[in-house]
Amino acid sequence: MKNVGVLLSGCGVYDGSEIHESVISLLALERNGANTVCMAPDINQHHVVNHLTGQPTEEKRNVLAESARIARGEIMDIKHVRTADLDALIIPGGFGAAKNLSDFAIKGKDAEVHPEVRRVIIEMADAKKPIGAICISPAVLAKVLEDRHPQVTIGNDLGTAEAIDAMGGRHTVCEVTSIHVDIENKLVTTPAYMLGPTISKVAEGIEKLIKKVLDMA
Amino acid sequence: MKNVGVLLSGCGVYDGSEIHESVISLLALERNGANTVCMAPDINQHHVVNHLTGQPTEEKRNVLAESARIARGEIMDIKHVRTADLDALIIPGGFGAAKNLSDFAIKGKDAEVHPEVRRVIIEMADAKKPIGAICISPAVLAKVLEDRHPQVTIGNDLGTAEAIDAMGGRHTVCEVTSIHVDIENKLVTTPAYMLGPTISKVAEGIEKLIKKVLDMA
Repeated sequence: MKNVGVLLSGCGVYDGSEIHESVISLLALERNGANTVCMAPDINQHHVVNHLTGQPTEEKRNVLAESARIARGEIMDIKHVRTADLDALIIPGGFGAAKNLSDFAIKGKDAEVHPEVRRVIIEMADAKKPIGAICISPAVLAKVLEDRHPQVTIGNDLGTAEAIDAMGGRHTVCEVTSIHVDIENKLVTTPAYMLGPTISKVAEGIEKLIKKVLDMA
Repeated sequence: MKNVGVLLSGCGVYDGSEIHESVISLLALERNGANTVCMAPDINQHHVVNHLTGQPTEEKRNVLAESARIARGEIMDIKHVRTADLDALIIPGGFGAAKNLSDFAIKGKDAEVHPEVRRVIIEMADAKKPIGAICISPAVLAKVLEDRHPQVTIGNDLGTAEAIDAMGGRHTVCEVTSIHVDIENKLVTTPAYMLGPTISKVAEGIEKLIKKVLDMA
């Protein structure tokens, strides 16, 4: 049985991991025979957004504790993750990837990535283990692996695509129900809710991504 | 296209809606051709539980705003829901059903149910529209519909089953991958994470439940 890390960034599209993308990933991994290992950094969220109004609140929430909602409590602090124990890594989307795992949402191409997130991605890439990144999270890959010129998709958003190219990545336009594969770097990406429009379309792309990542693992 | 209400109770298994059950329901509804209408009551949660430690915290969170995380912001205050607009209703599980929609987790058979939740369930039942209830939420149905002696399952937990019977329901033991159907009352129930053990088993039962509910709608 393959062990696949799932890197979460909170719980909710506007300030954490996109919940649908995360659950669809966990379900597809298990249905394809993989064991999942959820992980997140033990840091405060960049901010908390009321998902009813879309407005930030004064609250403080912890990325690891909120991610534990999606993982039903079974989650590791990423600093304890040994990539030698993993066969592949999946990074669901949601603004958490661009606000908590990195600050791409604020700084664009000049983004910094959380050091433990950086470590895990680099160790996986160095070991030639596949990484699947969903929605906005390919931007994190593009930043961390900038020297390797990773080919990724986030759909067709021009500003985001330009930032990815500026970081050293190579962006490819892709439909929500499809995936883009960087064979050399073993990266699989899909636009998901960067394009939407609905959960079943998003699921189609993610299910292809999970199968491809497991094939490559 | 059938309109199906999805009644949420927060966002997280220990103090709100069980996230996997909710997302699997939304996905199965769309894949089976239904339009979904998410709803929740605009009240404070009974409490907030840190899902990493399992311990309650001092925080206050609102059921509607937290449910909006699962619904990606597209959610109605249940008090504005007109059941004439719905063809069926789904109630995912999680402790939120037993702490926020009702106080079954605290009072057992003497539970009270939020008046708008009660209204929606009774109006759906009176109109002979099907209701699917997952995990612990069949206990809410058993309380609201006690005079109609609803047949439900929550798996095989003896204490919960006894409380359901004491409220006027009739509990039936059921496997996680199966559903129980009360033809007379048009209720479909599945144990989900009351039994677990894993997301793909839970999904198998929920997918059967959604298909059955839509068949009956």
